[in-house]
Amino acid sequence: MSRSGEFERIARYFAPLTAGFDGAAGLQDDAAVLTVPNGRELVVTTDTIVEKVHYLGPESPSRIAKKLLRVNLSDLAAKGAVPHWYTLNIAVPGSVEDAWFEGLCKGLREDQERYSVTLAGGDTVRSDGAIVLTLTGFGSVAQGAAIRRAGATPGDLVYVTGTIGDAALGLRCARGAFPDLPMRQREALIERYELPDPPVAFGASLGGIASASVDISDGLAADTGHLAGASGVAVAVHAQAVPVSDATADVLAEDPDLMRTVLSGGDDYQILCTVPPAKEAAFRTLAEDNHVMVTRIGRIDAGEGLHLLDQDDAPLSLSELGYVHS
Amino acid sequence: MSRSGEFERIARYFAPLTAGFDGAAGLQDDAAVLTVPNGRELVVTTDTIVEKVHYLGPESPSRIAKKLLRVNLSDLAAKGAVPHWYTLNIAVPGSVEDAWFEGLCKGLREDQERYSVTLAGGDTVRSDGAIVLTLTGFGSVAQGAAIRRAGATPGDLVYVTGTIGDAALGLRCARGAFPDLPMRQREALIERYELPDPPVAFGASLGGIASASVDISDGLAADTGHLAGASGVAVAVHAQAVPVSDATADVLAEDPDLMRTVLSGGDDYQILCTVPPAKEAAFRTLAEDNHVMVTRIGRIDAGEGLHLLDQDDAPLSLSELGYVHS
Repeated sequence: MSRSGEFERIARYFAPLTAGFDGAAGLQDDAAVLTVPNGRELVVTTDTIVEKVHYLGPESPSRIAKKLLRVNLSDLAAKGAVPHWYTLNIAVPGSVEDAWFEGLCKGLREDQERYSVTLAGGDTVRSDGAIVLTLTGFGSVAQGAAIRRAGATPGDLVYVTGTIGDAALGLRCARGAFPDLPMRQREALIERYELPDPPVAFGASLGGIASASVDISDGLAADTGHLAGASGVAVAVHAQAVPVSDATADVLAEDPDLMRTVLSGGDDYQILCTVPPAKEAAFRTLAEDNHVMVTRIGRIDAGEGLHLLDQDDAPLSLSELGYVHS
Repeated sequence: MSRSGEFERIARYFAPLTAGFDGAAGLQDDAAVLTVPNGRELVVTTDTIVEKVHYLGPESPSRIAKKLLRVNLSDLAAKGAVPHWYTLNIAVPGSVEDAWFEGLCKGLREDQERYSVTLAGGDTVRSDGAIVLTLTGFGSVAQGAAIRRAGATPGDLVYVTGTIGDAALGLRCARGAFPDLPMRQREALIERYELPDPPVAFGASLGGIASASVDISDGLAADTGHLAGASGVAVAVHAQAVPVSDATADVLAEDPDLMRTVLSGGDDYQILCTVPPAKEAAFRTLAEDNHVMVTRIGRIDAGEGLHLLDQDDAPLSLSELGYVHS
């Protein structure tokens, strides 16, 4: 039940996470030095999470750390960037013990290996309230090759990676919903909420293939709307084409109205991107090579906003949306 | 007494701070793209501050923002970096009103002009506790030219910029100490605590001249110790040579024991650096050109740690330290 001082914590828990990266100077300098390879640009994203606001509280610190890192890696992937480094800022009450830091760093260490990223710097301070964590992710893309939300043009095809809605239903599971769902399914959905699995390597190879891209964090509906707005186009999405997992399909079979939650719930950390028809074959090959499931869910039209369509191309509104098990 | 939503706040208050910098995409994308000029490296530093822990609370949000930015610019300056961009993460209770955000952004806008830096990205989230602010500063140096804490060698001269101790005494003033000090002096010291004035342009030109450098944030004594440790040398400092302001000199004249506070109080945000004798003339010319006061306070010896000396080169300990008005 011990608590180390700030310098001791940095030396014991965080400095080892910089191993092999001289630019971090072992966390013993005022700043980190990042060398961006010639001909490449730096891509930077940052997220802050607050205990009991962005995570429930009882999750293990290892999972919390992994989710925070992966949420940022998801943003980098959606921009076509290869991830390299991250910085971590931690504000914690004095009552937080060493075991919490140990768990946090265990999660970071495991994901550093999984994604080939390294801690570059950070700050650890005392807070009198909730734990507040900020992670800033650094990746790189070839000069001018970052994939923006703007860039979709009419005729482009709309794709998503993975399955949609699992995390939103998983959050409900974690809060006690769907008591009749088999334990294995419940656990699978909760796992998707607690531990996103963004297509990091696939995203990093999308430069020159996807015309626009966004990571799905606010929900498929909202983030599609963001891409539409940034690109100045309309996005037509066939609701029935949206890929769902077996567990989510089972939940929807019981309560078709939950399709609204699937499309708008968020926390998916998958990529929604647009692909010019001429690039579709290359895109699908890339997905196969990376063992990433991709599903064509719609197309880009002239106009604005998200247009949900049924199987006959007739408009659907989110409010009238139900789910038909196929 | 209104409170905007997150997207509205970003559009209204923060997006204008990215004006002229396309890489931020108006804060409407998943990430920022930073182009580091060819032949240069990125230098990154980050700090988190918590309401009532790192600032008192009643300071204006404009001042809080400026201090947070300048604290990071101070780190960049100490590394010889030219500042370019920053990201800002804000966790605030729902009760915080638009006026607070307006004040915060007013301070940022003023300092963006003062230091030629631009907002590149960030995150704004709800917290149920204290306000927690994280700022990450990005600068650049010529390849390999970052000035590290390691790099000092015996024979180098030890210099500091500005005056030392004002902020530490200013914090005491703000808490009601030194009631007999003239109002003008009290205000000057509090100003130095609330609004550091790091030598940003001067620091950015120290590459190739200073052999090692650290920004003084934890106190002259502690940060000198950090530099000594990183460089594997001893730092000999003549206590009487440490430059103090008129206000601090007046406080010390009343209570010489406060010299310990001056040397160890922190929050100075000045540069402590080492200069090879052959570079001293160039260093002093650079200081003059930048209108920065620099004072030689000691030398690098073989050995380890900080060695405080009196005017006869005899060792002093921090505990026996007093101040003799000169």
